[in-house]
Amino acid sequence: MVAEHAVRNGVIIKEADATLSVTNREVQFGFSTYESIRVIKGRPVHLADHLRRLDKSCEGIFLSHSFTNEELTNWVHALIQVDSLVEASVRILVVGGKDPQCFITAAPLISYPDSYYREGVVTFTYEGERLMPSCKTGNLLLNYMALEAARRQGGFEALLVNREGEILEGTRSNFFAFREGKLYTAPSEKVLLGVTRDRVVQAALKNGIEVVYESPLAKDVRSGLYDELFISATSMAAMPIYSVDGKSFAGPFTRTLAICHQVREWELED
Amino acid sequence: MVAEHAVRNGVIIKEADATLSVTNREVQFGFSTYESIRVIKGRPVHLADHLRRLDKSCEGIFLSHSFTNEELTNWVHALIQVDSLVEASVRILVVGGKDPQCFITAAPLISYPDSYYREGVVTFTYEGERLMPSCKTGNLLLNYMALEAARRQGGFEALLVNREGEILEGTRSNFFAFREGKLYTAPSEKVLLGVTRDRVVQAALKNGIEVVYESPLAKDVRSGLYDELFISATSMAAMPIYSVDGKSFAGPFTRTLAICHQVREWELED
Repeated sequence: MVAEHAVRNGVIIKEADATLSVTNREVQFGFSTYESIRVIKGRPVHLADHLRRLDKSCEGIFLSHSFTNEELTNWVHALIQVDSLVEASVRILVVGGKDPQCFITAAPLISYPDSYYREGVVTFTYEGERLMPSCKTGNLLLNYMALEAARRQGGFEALLVNREGEILEGTRSNFFAFREGKLYTAPSEKVLLGVTRDRVVQAALKNGIEVVYESPLAKDVRSGLYDELFISATSMAAMPIYSVDGKSFAGPFTRTLAICHQVREWELED
Repeated sequence: MVAEHAVRNGVIIKEADATLSVTNREVQFGFSTYESIRVIKGRPVHLADHLRRLDKSCEGIFLSHSFTNEELTNWVHALIQVDSLVEASVRILVVGGKDPQCFITAAPLISYPDSYYREGVVTFTYEGERLMPSCKTGNLLLNYMALEAARRQGGFEALLVNREGEILEGTRSNFFAFREGKLYTAPSEKVLLGVTRDRVVQAALKNGIEVVYESPLAKDVRSGLYDELFISATSMAAMPIYSVDGKSFAGPFTRTLAICHQVREWELED
């Protein structure tokens, strides 16, 4: 286990004690928000960005609490220190209600085999729309079911398709596709405002690539209208897609890997 | 507190120990199902129906577990016995994953003032569609937010309206409306298959009332096309609606109260 401890409302506790009562109504209803943050070389990467998004998630679902971002920052650092975390994935969870609770826990840093980046990953589409896509909340059953469905077919990620047939995002990633040299991704109001998504856009612009905020249609992706696809997430940076619903895309994924490299560089400069 | 104990995977524990780890992925994703059952005179009302629906909810989201309905029945009775419960609301929660967990807890029986039945309750519509409406799962943020929005306006319940403008159901109730002597409610595939909803339909038929499975449009309700409205739930039986978005409906709610009376009678005969 990476962490022996956790933080509850600012107090260091044993991780085993980081629990919620099953009789808590807010737990039952998933009235909660969260963020996952990479710790690299003992530093929480882009923490301020994650806390800003946590604020937005709380505002979006009217979850009031009195935890300040300064406190949350201190608590993340306290957990890093008490468990001497060098590389880890830290999760901040805020549960709402009359007596809001904040938990900070740590898990091993997620990293993927090099082959995923060289060869790309297998994906499958899944029809479904998230409630309040710009908020990270405990309302995640669609994401869970979509990912399970993709895994049953041997996939690594599921891509969520809305009623208009557009691919908006993955279950734990944002989605990007190249077409005639331009980079397409869903408009910001329709998807999670990924901290890494912002970095991907910046990296693309830095490389002289135009970014178009239009959601690719699943049928156009399957018919080969796009020539290089990838997903982005805190844990993945930018990861090439090998196939969507069996339609495969040949590597080398040069442009994706250039963006991936840039995103990882920025993590260390933060 | 009504209950000092709870049951976890068949074992009687202190209620305070009925907790879930915040690091449990299935807890984080709301990959769970539940049922709430009224205990009256020490007997769990319509328990077999509730367990049948729990099965359907688990099947619907592909949640596998090995708890049999015989076991669940025994565990509910064990909790009733150990805490000498006479009147209570018992909740069965099943959390999925590699190591599924089942919790049975009890809370005070919910009952409402007589005035709610005499005068009806204030409701407000809320636009939003539930994921897999026929399953009772931990994916309840829409219900939570809709109910909070109604409460902020002084309402007792929120009525969920889909993209077609139809009122499908309440956040914790089914919805019914009379028009020219016929009783209208949403088609079964669009809503939660309420255990009490079934009883309401039976009671209506017993009273010679035709039941039409068509969802009333919110605009038709607001314009007065329907003349008596009510919501139904395990905790409410059938409760008249005084107003929807400020459009009020005059009592006495004779037909609703006749149905309510019949539903409560059947609870004792179970």
